[in-house]
Parts: sequence; structure tokens; C-alpha cells
Amino acid sequence: MIGSPNKPLPRAPSVAIVGATGAVGTEMIACLERRHFPLSRLKLLASPRSAGRSTKFKGHDVRIDALDALSLQDIDIALFSAGGAISKEFAKTAPRHAVVIDNSSAFRMEQHVPLIVPEVNIDQIACHSGIIANPSCVAIIAALALWPLHRANPIHRVVATTYQAASGGGAALMEELRASTKAFLTNQNFTPRVAPHDYAFNVFSHNTRVDSESGNNEEEIKVARELPKIMNAPNLRVGVTCVRVPVLRAHTIAMTVEFEHPLTPGTAREILRNARGLEIVDDRKSNRFPMPRDATGRDEVLVGRLRQDQSDPSGRSISMLVAGDQLLKGAALNAVQIAEYLMKSHDA
Amino acid sequence: MIGSPNKPLPRAPSVAIVGATGAVGTEMIACLERRHFPLSRLKLLASPRSAGRSTKFKGHDVRIDALDALSLQDIDIALFSAGGAISKEFAKTAPRHAVVIDNSSAFRMEQHVPLIVPEVNIDQIACHSGIIANPSCVAIIAALALWPLHRANPIHRVVATTYQAASGGGAALMEELRASTKAFLTNQNFTPRVAPHDYAFNVFSHNTRVDSESGNNEEEIKVARELPKIMNAPNLRVGVTCVRVPVLRAHTIAMTVEFEHPLTPGTAREILRNARGLEIVDDRKSNRFPMPRDATGRDEVLVGRLRQDQSDPSGRSISMLVAGDQLLKGAALNAVQIAEYLMKSHDA
Repeated sequence: MIGSPNKPLPRAPSVAIVGATGAVGTEMIACLERRHFPLSRLKLLASPRSAGRSTKFKGHDVRIDALDALSLQDIDIALFSAGGAISKEFAKTAPRHAVVIDNSSAFRMEQHVPLIVPEVNIDQIACHSGIIANPSCVAIIAALALWPLHRANPIHRVVATTYQAASGGGAALMEELRASTKAFLTNQNFTPRVAPHDYAFNVFSHNTRVDSESGNNEEEIKVARELPKIMNAPNLRVGVTCVRVPVLRAHTIAMTVEFEHPLTPGTAREILRNARGLEIVDDRKSNRFPMPRDATGRDEVLVGRLRQDQSDPSGRSISMLVAGDQLLKGAALNAVQIAEYLMKSHDA
Repeated sequence: MIGSPNKPLPRAPSVAIVGATGAVGTEMIACLERRHFPLSRLKLLASPRSAGRSTKFKGHDVRIDALDALSLQDIDIALFSAGGAISKEFAKTAPRHAVVIDNSSAFRMEQHVPLIVPEVNIDQIACHSGIIANPSCVAIIAALALWPLHRANPIHRVVATTYQAASGGGAALMEELRASTKAFLTNQNFTPRVAPHDYAFNVFSHNTRVDSESGNNEEEIKVARELPKIMNAPNLRVGVTCVRVPVLRAHTIAMTVEFEHPLTPGTAREILRNARGLEIVDDRKSNRFPMPRDATGRDEVLVGRLRQDQSDPSGRSISMLVAGDQLLKGAALNAVQIAEYLMKSHDA
């Protein structure tokens, strides 16, 4: 059972990645390597199907083991990205002093589980009882742009629509997007197996279960709940429409944001220019704004197309576009950043 | 010079298509044929570059001529879709009794030019002085879903974001989307010539000029101006973000709509179910909602994902998705429908 971190984390912890062969797990390994995370040992865990394969880490082959109840016994930090069911079953097998950073939605809304975007609420990291949740990708990417503005001028309402990439559905959905597109271009029939619809040159409402009562899908419900928790803004009202577009791995989000007081796009741009984790891409003259192809492989979330919302004459609403790599800041990078802060608080 | 229609249109008019080789012109020819438009003669006009080629119409080859100042002399109805500059230069070369139905933005906002979506404001058709404007594609597709709701419960505000297809940029942009995608999938370099950015698996802010003052692009400015004119709702406030997605020919639009009085999604669905030109696609159980691939080649605009906007606690806001074929209802079909109503009013 996970308990309080009585025994401190060692200076060079042993780290496990649960779901090491998935799209996010693969990026977690890459993030740990390129950011020189000070680990003493990397343990890669996956389903029995992937066990026995190996992956390069800092030039060495690391074997992938099948996850079982004993896998995490000697682990200090476990990064989970293998779905909510695996997190629920195996997070508790970590030792009492260990910290689980969970990329699933299993624990995100639990009261004693901090939901962390380091640039926003790293102060919450001290409140964990063994589990820290990594927010959903759309919530992370949106929060990065909303938070600095919210601090300057409280946000009352966000109306967001997403242009979500295949990567959110894992490596299998990315591959299906490629395969269906190839089939379309060569006039061949294609039967989708991962997506509910043919993805080639198509757009479809997010492929999570739709609540029969409210009509919102699970992705939308997550975003609307997680943003107020991340931003510690319980009264923030979020209306969001989540849509998949035929893009491989970066999400774009269009947001219309209503503030307490009037705000000019120029002021918003200056606030965001000085914020961490963001890059302004807002060139009206050359028509260059945040795009998923530009955000792919980037740690920064791109933000731009900042302008007054023409439908709110009070001057209190700003529209914008953000684009962020779903696998990096939207998942793996954010989780690794949380692990880095765990080590920093250890140093302090 | 175009004047008032003193001389009535003949029962079987001679019809010209200006821009006959373009993506919209090609669909206009197809619409006239499959809808059995009662024409006595079809004249196809294009740039000198395309002159001399021919196109099939009802099994016969029709030669394409170069447009010049005398081309429209013997024409009763001219369908223009060759850009605003051509419309401005050549609309006035039609005879006094003729009617120009113009798909460009050249005349749309002129006071004495009706801006017609037949299902919405066909009553305005009588007010023309020789020119009737076909609205921009996004405005037509949005208006079809907004109008029946507006009549039942006045709409105050629309916040819309678009998922626009390549077809709006013409046949050349559709071809570039295919070519850039093929290059991406085969790891080849690609230099975009039509779009400002590489279109393959990418999303970008609409490729029209961005107003340096407001930050809105021309497409957004059109939609925000045209919707209130079409719906005769001068106080309707429209905030819109226009974005291109890698889809070939149908536009999808996400809208959050604020009404004067509270409205349930169920009531909205019933109103739309009985409206003309729409098909409800709103299956929460099987996660099937409006998609551009389903809308392609269809005359109807698909509407669904009707649900309460979670960010408006007053219950006065509904979110929805619509998808419509940009080349059909968004352009060619709407223009041909206007021509059909011209003939009907002639009968009456």
C-alpha cells in the first residue's frame, strides 16, 4: 500500500516505466535520457506480450520485463502510462516510500492526489501521499496558456474546441492514420480497427465514450474537471468540444477565454511572452500561428492568434490558438518534469 | 449595366457559368445536370488558359470559351465563381434583364444585393437588382443549422471554430493536400506552392489575409458579417476562428450558441429534425456525429452533438457540430438552388 514518503527518495533513485513500449512510455525513456535524469537504475515494464524485447537507454540495451505484483518492489519512482486499470491494480504495489507519477485518469480527481503541471502548480507537489497525477494532454496544454493570464486577470469561462492528434490514441492509432491515408491515396479499401471511423482526410468527435445524459465524451469531462483543479479555480467554467483531426502527434486547441476585467490582446501577449513553457507564434503579417507540425518534437507549447473575441462587446474575451506535442508536454515530458521536481524538493 | 429585371426571364433560360473549370464551376455544371435545370443553352466560360477544352453536359461536349466583354450578351442567368475581381469586372456585362448569381465576396455586403440561403431567406430574392450573392461556404453551412433555432428562440451570440477542407482553396489546394501527404508518407521533401504551410497531417489558421488591427482573417470577417445579414439579425454577435484541416472537401464547424431563453438539446434536436436541408447525425451510443467524409457528396448539411454548453450555467447555450460539403451546399448547390427559385418566382 502506498503511504506517506517517510523514507526520503535517494539522490539517484531507481525508476520504473510501466507501459514502456507505448507511445508515451517510449517518449518517457527518451525524456529521461536527454534531460540527464539522475537515476541509478531504469526498469522497463510492459505487458507479457512485449516482455523479453529490449530498448536502448544511454547506449545500453535495457530489457523489458512483464509487469507483475513484485516488479516495483525495489523502485523509488514509477512512471505509469499503461491505462487506468493497470494504474489502479499496480500503483499500490510500489513501496511505501516510492512515488508513482500516473499518466492515466485513474487518480486525477482524488482529493489527496495532486494534479500537477509544473509551470502552474508545482507547489502542490508536497501534498502527495505516494501518487501524483499527470493531467490529460489537452488540460496540460491549455493550462500552460491559461494560467499566466488567470493570475493577471481571473478567468471566468473558457469555450474550447480541440484539433487532437492520433497520438492521444496511442501508437496503434498513429499507425492507423498512416495506413488509412495510404489506402485512400491509392484507392484501396480500408477497414478501421482502432478508430471508430475511417481516419483518412477525416475529422471525428473524440473516440471516448459519450455520456448518454450530458452528451459530453470522457475526454471533454476530463478537461472540464481537471482545468479547475490544476488552476485551483473551482468556479472556472469550461465548455469544451474534443475532436480528432488527421494529425500525427501534436494537439491544437482554439480557446475563447472570458476574463473578470477587460484585457487587450497586446497585454495578453506580453503576459504570455514572459511565461514559462510557452513560445509565442503570432505573426499576422506572414500568417504564421501555432501549428501541430511546428509543435511536434518541441518541449514548448506554441500560443498565438491572440485577438479580441468579436462576439463579446465588453472587451473581456480573448480568442487564441495553442499547439503542443501531445506525447511530450501533453504526457511524457510533464511526467518527467514532475519527477525532476521531486528530486529538487529532495535536495532542498 | 445591370438593371432591374423589367424583361422577365424566359421559361428555359440560357445559362452561363463563369469559372467553369474551377472546383466550384465543375460542381455547378453537375448540379444543373442532375437537378434537371430547365435551361435552353449552357455557356461555359473560363480564363483564356482553359479556353478550347470541353466538358460533358447531358452526354454532349460543351466547349469552354474565354470570358470577354461580349460573352454574356445573350445570357439570362450567369453563375459566377471565378473570384471577386472577375465578378466586379464582368457582372456588369450581363444584359439588363439577366441575373448574376455571384459566388465571390465582391457584392455580398452591398445593401441592394440579396445574400441568399434558400432555406433561410428566399423571400429576399425578389429584392435583387440584377445580382444575387451566394454567401461564403462557412456562413451557408452554419446558417442552415442556426436559422431554425433562431426562429424558435432568438440567438444572441455564436462562438464558432471551423475545421475547413482544402476545397475552399480550389482544386489546386485539394491537389496540394494529396501531393504533400503522399510526399510525407514516402519521406520525400515537399515545398508548398498553394498553401502557406506544409498541409500534410497539419492544421493551420485560415490562409486569407489577416487584418493587422483586429487580428481576424478575411474568412472570419466574412462569416461574422454575412451571418447577421442572411438571418436578418443585425444584433447577432459572431466570434469565429477559421482553421484549415487536412480534409478534402467538406467543412466541419463547432458552434456554441447562446439563445435568448433556456433551451434543451432535445428541443433543439426536434426543431432541427423538421428543418429543411439538414440531416441529424447525433448517435451518442455509437459515437457517430457529423463528419466531413460523411458529408462529402451530400446535399444535406449534417448536424449533431447537440448538448448543453457546460460553461453557461444559465442553460441558454447549446454546443453542436455541423458538417457540409463545401463545394455543394457551401457553393455550387446553393447557387443553383437560387437559380431554381428564380425560375419558380417566374412561374408564379
